[in-house]
Parts: sequence; structure tokens; C-alpha cells
Amino acid sequence: MAEKAASQGIVFRPHFKTHASLEVGRWYREEGITRITVSSIAMAEYFAADGWNDITIAFPFHAGIADPVNALAEKIRLNIIVSSVASAETAAKLLRFEINVWIETDTGYPRTGIKAEDIVSTDCAVSLLKTNSRIHFQGFLAHFGHSYAAKNRQEVSIIWNEGIGLLNNLKQRYSGSRISVGDTPCCSLVDDFSGADEIRPGNFVYYDLMQLQAGACTSDDVAVAVLCPVVAVYPGEHRIVLHGGAVHLSKESLEVNGIRVFGKVGFLNNNDLPEYPGDCFITSLSQEHAVVSIPPRLLHLFREGGSVAVMPVHSCLSADALRGFFLPLKHQTHNNCR
Amino acid sequence: MAEKAASQGIVFRPHFKTHASLEVGRWYREEGITRITVSSIAMAEYFAADGWNDITIAFPFHAGIADPVNALAEKIRLNIIVSSVASAETAAKLLRFEINVWIETDTGYPRTGIKAEDIVSTDCAVSLLKTNSRIHFQGFLAHFGHSYAAKNRQEVSIIWNEGIGLLNNLKQRYSGSRISVGDTPCCSLVDDFSGADEIRPGNFVYYDLMQLQAGACTSDDVAVAVLCPVVAVYPGEHRIVLHGGAVHLSKESLEVNGIRVFGKVGFLNNNDLPEYPGDCFITSLSQEHAVVSIPPRLLHLFREGGSVAVMPVHSCLSADALRGFFLPLKHQTHNNCR
Repeated sequence: MAEKAASQGIVFRPHFKTHASLEVGRWYREEGITRITVSSIAMAEYFAADGWNDITIAFPFHAGIADPVNALAEKIRLNIIVSSVASAETAAKLLRFEINVWIETDTGYPRTGIKAEDIVSTDCAVSLLKTNSRIHFQGFLAHFGHSYAAKNRQEVSIIWNEGIGLLNNLKQRYSGSRISVGDTPCCSLVDDFSGADEIRPGNFVYYDLMQLQAGACTSDDVAVAVLCPVVAVYPGEHRIVLHGGAVHLSKESLEVNGIRVFGKVGFLNNNDLPEYPGDCFITSLSQEHAVVSIPPRLLHLFREGGSVAVMPVHSCLSADALRGFFLPLKHQTHNNCR
Repeated sequence: MAEKAASQGIVFRPHFKTHASLEVGRWYREEGITRITVSSIAMAEYFAADGWNDITIAFPFHAGIADPVNALAEKIRLNIIVSSVASAETAAKLLRFEINVWIETDTGYPRTGIKAEDIVSTDCAVSLLKTNSRIHFQGFLAHFGHSYAAKNRQEVSIIWNEGIGLLNNLKQRYSGSRISVGDTPCCSLVDDFSGADEIRPGNFVYYDLMQLQAGACTSDDVAVAVLCPVVAVYPGEHRIVLHGGAVHLSKESLEVNGIRVFGKVGFLNNNDLPEYPGDCFITSLSQEHAVVSIPPRLLHLFREGGSVAVMPVHSCLSADALRGFFLPLKHQTHNNCR
């Protein structure tokens, strides 16, 4: 991803919320990455303490975080987003140190941001930001979150092109402004990043079952698995049960072949890498238990007391729930900031 | 719940996984409760350290936890469950201290347990347990988890009656054996506990939106709320956004009026108790953001920078994710064992 961005001359500012780990952060640093994205003030402080000094908090600025944002802006190059006219007004009023501010723009994913077509509100937000000389207006930042529901590369391309088009209309209106985008499906499946000045994908560092199903990666690209003990085997019902529940994997789910699933089950091979022998899916998940449906021909692989590797549906949420990870080849354990 | 069980002369052994809190545990102790249920060895150790000395670990016993189970069984009156013939065999082989063992029975919720109708396997498990003189066979324990999908009191009653009938067939076969049951929907909606010797509900201590929708409680019974800042208001789209995502509330959802929701939104009143003015539901939940759909007539209640109270869909998972709670009237903060 770093090479793909560099080859097109755009800034790569990976989102660190997926791993939230100092160790994984250092791997990025070895690739020459110096700018990062996080999703909370706590995460910004965590990485700033490890020497990261150019951080974007990609979560709406609001009065409740003004004090810690000011404290951090005094120390590092901090970038924040304002996601409404009210948010821009609050920023103009409360920010007291040099800070970069982006306007979050909604290009079709109705979560946060000023609608790209709403020029009146956008003008108003830009004007409000300009009333505070410490604020350096950067341009327009968007998250194309609807790309996660796209079914193939073509649908992802349409979302990318529409969003980039809308954002470039704004860029032309405000001279010197820039465009920051970049969810994992788009950054994985779109080849030409023309029209963007910066990308911020995060999930791709681990990928997961959701990205695999969406075609954004291959099974070999999925760089994380949750190890769970097998606590019961019911061969007559083609079912095994794991100690690995919603508190470990998160309750995120998706549909595979018309069935709701909460993870895919395989094994670690002799190199401690996960392999998935077939369609063994978690089909029911309670607080501590996972129920896995096993095709009859694969039942012989599972035994009570053994352990399995689970590919999570959404690696960001599982990494958060588990609060750390183990590197088998290096025999190291690392916590994350949760 | 304590009074309801006492009036019918049965043991009340509440499940502590919902709150996982020493403080809430002490409230139970003030009600005269001395026996508890937990869902993991870590939770058993946590409560044993606070003086609880009669604990049931309601999670399948397996070889992976034999060492800590033995260590705890040496210190307190420990009760475990075996959920298959293999689990009974492992228990008979590995348990080295006096311990009570239940056979987990599946009465129609296909998660763990020997099927109630499978007399051959049940006989085999009982025989295996009897080969170890430290093991005191207690009887049959079941979780009627399918009651969570029941739509009304009548459906819950049917599940209760079927399960109690199946378990009493087993009780008659093995003289001196007892019956332990008791999920929150059944224990809330069934009046007559005849046929059970022990109940183990947990969720009822907080209840939540799932139980409210199922008719197991009233809105006033829901004893927990997640406070979240309002970070953006989009009046034109009848939408507000909270800082309160899947990592705080869990991704548990349910359908209300045909729409998938992740929590209900209201306010704390002057007594610091939550009130819910109408159908304000979280309709989309990402890692840190909650998108709330607000009926137009209620939009004036919400402002950027304010805070709201969220009734979680599943309080057990939210309590786990948040790892603690605040008692507003007492101005105290307490952690839980997560």
C-alpha cells in the first residue's frame, strides 16, 4: 500500500485504529511512514507518546475533546476534522494552538460530514475556520464507508469515482485545498488514485473475512487469526463449540451462502500460519461460546481439547476486544492501546 | 428474583457474567445470596478472591482448564459442568480435588450439552464421573437459550415446560439428581418454577433492550445506560451521531418495527435516571460512531456537545466492553473483571 501510494505521488496516512499497536506502528515506520490516522484522542495520545508527530484524528471534533486536542496540538502536528457547521464554529472558538483542520464531507455514506452538494454549509464552515488564525484549513476529507457493502471491483470503482468527482468540485472552489480519502476496499481495488492527495486505509494491515468475501483480498492476505480451544465436539450434529465468543471476536457478522456467520475456522500449520480447509463457519455466537458448523467430510479434523484458528469477520473489532496479539515466529506478545 | 426463588423453596444461583462486578456481587450478598454462577475460570477466580466460596462455572469443562479448576477446587466449593461424554471422561481423569459436577443437557438449544433424549450418552457420562471418587455428581444443568428468541410469555412458557419435562425424565432415572436451569426470559416470565431445583438467571440484574422488546421487563426495569456525547447533529436528515461505537456497545442488534437497531437513545433526568422520549434508535454502528435516527418532532431535544443515555441491546456485552460503571447517586466508579 505504501508503494502504491508513493508510485502515484500521494500521501499515505494509514489508519491505526485497526491494530492500535505500537509494534505494528513501528513496522509502518520502517516503511518510511511518518503520518498516521487514528479514531480517538486517546489513540492519538498513545501514538504521540511513541514519537508519532503528525497525526489526524478522523473523528468529528466537538467541544468535549477541546482540552486534550489543544494539549496535543501544542506538542505535535495535529490534524482534526470538523463534520458540520456547528463543529467548525466550535473549532474556531476553542482551538488555541497551530492546528490543521479538514472539513469532513459526506459523498454518499450517511454517517458524518457536510453533504458534498451543500455548498452553502461548506462555505459557511470554511469562513468560520478562517476566523481563527491558528487554524490551517487543509481541504476535504471523506470516508467512502458504503464501499464496504459493494459486491465487486466494479461497484467499488463507481463509489470511488463518484466520491472523487464530488470532492474535486469542492477542491476547485477553494484554491489550495486538498482531498483525503481512502477506505480499504477502495484502496485495495482501485488502481488509479488520480484526484486524491492522500489515502488513509487501515483495515488492510490485517484484512479479515469481510474483506475476503468482498474480494478486496485473498485468503493468504488475511494476517490475523484468533486462536480458540475446542471445548466440545458433537459429530452427530456436525457441530463443534469453541471458547471464543462475542467478547473475543465481536458480534460482527456477514452473510455467506445465505447463512449469517461470525468467523471462519481453520488451523495453524507447521509454520504457525492459518489454513482454512473448507467451509467451517461460526454460525452462532454467544458471550463466551462459538458454535461452528462443520461439513461432515471435515469433522475428523476436530477434537475436544484441540485448538483452532478463527478468521474474524471484522479484524478491527476483534483486535480491540482482545487488546493484544502474539507474533508466533518471534514468540512475542504485544498489547494494543485498548 | 431472590424472593421469587425463596418463596418456591429453590436455590437461586445468579449468573455473574452480566455485571462481572465485585460491587454488584456485594449487593447480591446483602440479599442473602451465597451461591453464584460464572462463565469462565478467570471470573471464578475473581469472585473467589472476594470471598465467594460456592461457584458454578457454567462453561464446558475441558482439558485446557484442568489445572486452574483443580487449584480452585482445592480452595472453594466448586461446581463445573461436563457437556459431552468426552468432557466427562476428561473430568474423571484429571480432577484431583472434591468437586461437584453437573451434566449439561441440551433440551432444544443446540449449543452445548448432551441431548436430553440421548440416554446412552447420558448413562455413559454418569458412569465415567462415578469412576472418580472426588467427583460428586449433582444432576442435570441446562440453558434454555432459545427462550431469547421467544416472542411472548406463552412461547417462553412452552420452552420452559418442554425443557423441565425432559430434565425431569432424567432426574427420575438417576436417583438423588437435581435440576438447574434458568435464563432471564424464563425466570422473568414463568411464575411457577416447579420441577427445577435451582435457577441461574443473570441478565435480569440490568436487563436491556432485547429483554424489553421480548416483554421480559418494562423500560423502568432496565438498570443500565451508556452515556455518549453527541458529536454531530444533521437536522435535515433527522440524524445525530454519537461517540459510542461497536467497541463500547458491542455490535449486538435486534429488529424493531422491521429495522435493525443497535440501541435506544434517551436522556438522564434530574435524578440521573434514563428516560426515553420516543423511538430514537441507533440504526448504524461503526467502530467509534453511532448513527441515531430521530423522529422529526424530537429533533429539538438534541444538540451538538450534549450527551445522551443509550439503552444497550445486550447489557452483558456492553458491560464487558466498557469494563466498569458509574453509580450516579453514589458518585462511585467501579471496574469489572474484564
